[in-house]
Amino acid sequence: MPKNNEVSMSVIRRLPRYYRFLGELLRTGVERVSSRELSNLMGLTASQIRQDLNCFGGFGQQGYGYNVPHLHEEISKILGLQSQQKTILIGAGNLGRAIISYSSFKGKGFELIGVFDRDPNLIGTKIANQTIIDVKEMGEFCKQNSPTVAILCVPKTSAHAIVEKLVELGIQGFWNFSHYDIMMDYPNVVAENVHLSDSLMTLSYKVTNHTKQ
Amino acid sequence: MPKNNEVSMSVIRRLPRYYRFLGELLRTGVERVSSRELSNLMGLTASQIRQDLNCFGGFGQQGYGYNVPHLHEEISKILGLQSQQKTILIGAGNLGRAIISYSSFKGKGFELIGVFDRDPNLIGTKIANQTIIDVKEMGEFCKQNSPTVAILCVPKTSAHAIVEKLVELGIQGFWNFSHYDIMMDYPNVVAENVHLSDSLMTLSYKVTNHTKQ
Repeated sequence: MPKNNEVSMSVIRRLPRYYRFLGELLRTGVERVSSRELSNLMGLTASQIRQDLNCFGGFGQQGYGYNVPHLHEEISKILGLQSQQKTILIGAGNLGRAIISYSSFKGKGFELIGVFDRDPNLIGTKIANQTIIDVKEMGEFCKQNSPTVAILCVPKTSAHAIVEKLVELGIQGFWNFSHYDIMMDYPNVVAENVHLSDSLMTLSYKVTNHTKQ
Repeated sequence: MPKNNEVSMSVIRRLPRYYRFLGELLRTGVERVSSRELSNLMGLTASQIRQDLNCFGGFGQQGYGYNVPHLHEEISKILGLQSQQKTILIGAGNLGRAIISYSSFKGKGFELIGVFDRDPNLIGTKIANQTIIDVKEMGEFCKQNSPTVAILCVPKTSAHAIVEKLVELGIQGFWNFSHYDIMMDYPNVVAENVHLSDSLMTLSYKVTNHTKQ
């Protein structure tokens, strides 16, 4: 049983990376891996890897290393990837459409069940097997289908009102691409923010300070 | 002059957020703001804000607070937003196209000067005023135009070879949407990674552990 009550977010954020690297080993038929080998692959120290995995009760054996299929499976369980949280996406503009086409939700803990927009030109059209639904029907849809997660691809100006409604409708988790700070107003939901423009500005800092050196 | 030689990345990563909030204050005509007011807006403690900004030499005055236009301008300088790094994007699939349409590069330190793909169906078509160029012409283009930054929207399998070429061609910074770990192989370039599927798996962890509580 994972003892993950007090695991820091920086450890959690490394887990998807472990999961990806173990998945690659698995696909090439590797059955066991030492923390040293994993360390060479991933660019982390072996001691960091042992420490990270020990947060969840360890999984390695002295002199054997880690069993790849077992560790892959255990990390998948810790991350909850085998669950299928019913998920809706709001805002089928350029970014929303890319998210739908680009992301594979199955196997990552989510099932996309509805896509909403307010643009009459988009409503009724299809993206990756999803027919875009009028956002006015979102309330009724949620009552019937009980989604728990929403992907927010709307501008900051519309985000607050939509989040208020979605929280009322039972949404507990947000993949948030808007600049609206959900958890300041709703501390009881969870949100994972992807702020592309912040990331771009951080790159600007890195490049500027790199070239100054 | 900012004394930012040893500023930690966690402080740097908060700067774009300060910049955004100050920009909003600026647009509503606010001239000065105390660390307490900023703290209420941003959900950080006032002491955290003072500490962050002190890393760059402070900017506040006891009893006055911060001058909004001045602080906004100074953070813009620290982030290098007024520079225009010549930037190319490789991989004009769904994600690449969304990045082009969605991101405004000007005012964030970048100028997008070329978009490349290898798909004959895409080459020659236009996205947001950019005509997609055959990736075979990338070398010649870089020699003529000397871009310094590349946005990488290609699968991990093609990423290594493309990065090798781009580094040879003088690219110093990457906005990296691929899962290829650039800085492990090229420690002298800078990279800012956006790993959407890792973010999705992190949300899965948060939602799973939230609902368990």
